Amino acid sequence: MKTVQIIAEVRKTVSDARSGGAAVGFVPTMGALHEGHLSLIDAARSACDFVAVSIFVNPTQFAPGEDLATYPGGIEADLSACEARGADLVFVPDVETMYPRGAVTSVSVSGLSETLCGRSRPTHFAGVCTVVTKLLNIVRPDKAFFGRKDFQQLVIVTRMVEDLDIPVEIVSCPIVRHADGLAMSTRNQRLSAAVRLQAVALHAALESAVARIRQSHPPAAEVIASAREYLSTNAPDGEIDYIQIVDPQTLRDVETTDRIVLLALAVKFPGARLIDNMLVDSAGEGQ
Amino acid sequence: MKTVQIIAEVRKTVSDARSGGAAVGFVPTMGALHEGHLSLIDAARSACDFVAVSIFVNPTQFAPGEDLATYPGGIEADLSACEARGADLVFVPDVETMYPRGAVTSVSVSGLSETLCGRSRPTHFAGVCTVVTKLLNIVRPDKAFFGRKDFQQLVIVTRMVEDLDIPVEIVSCPIVRHADGLAMSTRNQRLSAAVRLQAVALHAALESAVARIRQSHPPAAEVIASAREYLSTNAPDGEIDYIQIVDPQTLRDVETTDRIVLLALAVKFPGARLIDNMLVDSAGEGQ
Repeated sequence: MKTVQIIAEVRKTVSDARSGGAAVGFVPTMGALHEGHLSLIDAARSACDFVAVSIFVNPTQFAPGEDLATYPGGIEADLSACEARGADLVFVPDVETMYPRGAVTSVSVSGLSETLCGRSRPTHFAGVCTVVTKLLNIVRPDKAFFGRKDFQQLVIVTRMVEDLDIPVEIVSCPIVRHADGLAMSTRNQRLSAAVRLQAVALHAALESAVARIRQSHPPAAEVIASAREYLSTNAPDGEIDYIQIVDPQTLRDVETTDRIVLLALAVKFPGARLIDNMLVDSAGEGQ
Repeated sequence: MKTVQIIAEVRKTVSDARSGGAAVGFVPTMGALHEGHLSLIDAARSACDFVAVSIFVNPTQFAPGEDLATYPGGIEADLSACEARGADLVFVPDVETMYPRGAVTSVSVSGLSETLCGRSRPTHFAGVCTVVTKLLNIVRPDKAFFGRKDFQQLVIVTRMVEDLDIPVEIVSCPIVRHADGLAMSTRNQRLSAAVRLQAVALHAALESAVARIRQSHPPAAEVIASAREYLSTNAPDGEIDYIQIVDPQTLRDVETTDRIVLLALAVKFPGARLIDNMLVDSAGEGQ
């Protein structure tokens, strides 16, 4: 496995691999890797001949006051994990390499970026889109792998790639959860033991909502009200940022649940804002 | 020469050429080609093995009320001209091909897009940046050729390509002028004979301003005032949109002229808004 800090060296390494006929897979990350990230490397490893991973805590997707300064690191453990899972190349640029002249150019996707997490993080997805565009232009992969925990990010990046004709296939991968159901997240490590117990309520609220939808397809507002009540009771230290039921393609709120819907929520706990979601297909299957 | 309407066919044609070792040059245009455009094809022909041209009147860079509906066409003459100048491929997509699901994704360059033409055309450069990104992703050229008549566009596209790590070299080409000095423009054909005579004043005002700067490096405000007066007298049917003296990299207004400066102006005549510019280097040479 090669660890590279220089853009030109990434290009050369990938280009050499491709000239040998290799299909190139890419997993962009912000490091502090957990099994969720590593499952993306596994997926890339299965689908492609050459696997590139990036580790870059992108400052432009954090707003002032968010947790950029305290975002977890741990590059040595990350590199070992990448190697163990079979990555061929890890790109670890510094901020100067990625933004040598600041960040005046921006890529944005209107209509999909203002709802859900975009409500409380209005500049977040432009930061994500811009850095993903840059990384895709640097690595030029055939396929790029994104997890469904950041469902809105996945939808936005997929749309951006289509709209800008970026020649890459975006591959969507399932959420990886702890045994008790909590979705894996780098930010989970910031929770106190007591709050960590409460955080299970995110998944439980979603499970319960999916069960209600499967049973009787109640109006979205009813499902949301129940989930809200469940979270208030079972995660008293959490401040609900949003609970929404939306169309999984347009991300627009829906009123009825007798169709494919995405249940998505975000809760601010002391130390970390957590997100989770479940997709419910028309047959009522939670995914 | 191949004329292609389908994105996949462009990709395949360019990819085949590249696999044979060809360096790929690209000239994006909106058609109604004149010698200015054709000089870009010549430059691409000299520098590259395979030359792709696009002809697409991009609706997203026109604001409501601008001249999208009346923008000149003439595809047959354009294709003949491309063939005569040695283009290998002309991409002629329709709007549905370029924007099959609308235009929600946008690329913008802040700080460079709000001055000069951006003052009266605030959404123009986001439209340009987005379509250029798309075209570069479709064609994937080694070099792309832009004329200096649209100097602000050249600066913005160059910065965008650097910021987004798009692997292409932007090549800047000189303004091509009519014998009387008027910069070639598709929109010149909309001028009445009387206004066409007045339009020479744009170039003459710039020439005179360059001469003043060469001679004594007067304050920018003085040079601008003289140019404004000259245009009022010699192009009475023209409404001055702007006359600015700026740093050619940052496009910020400068106060002094004893440095490299760009003189740029835009004048609205009945039928067409025209732009022109001259670069004056530190030795006082107009370019």
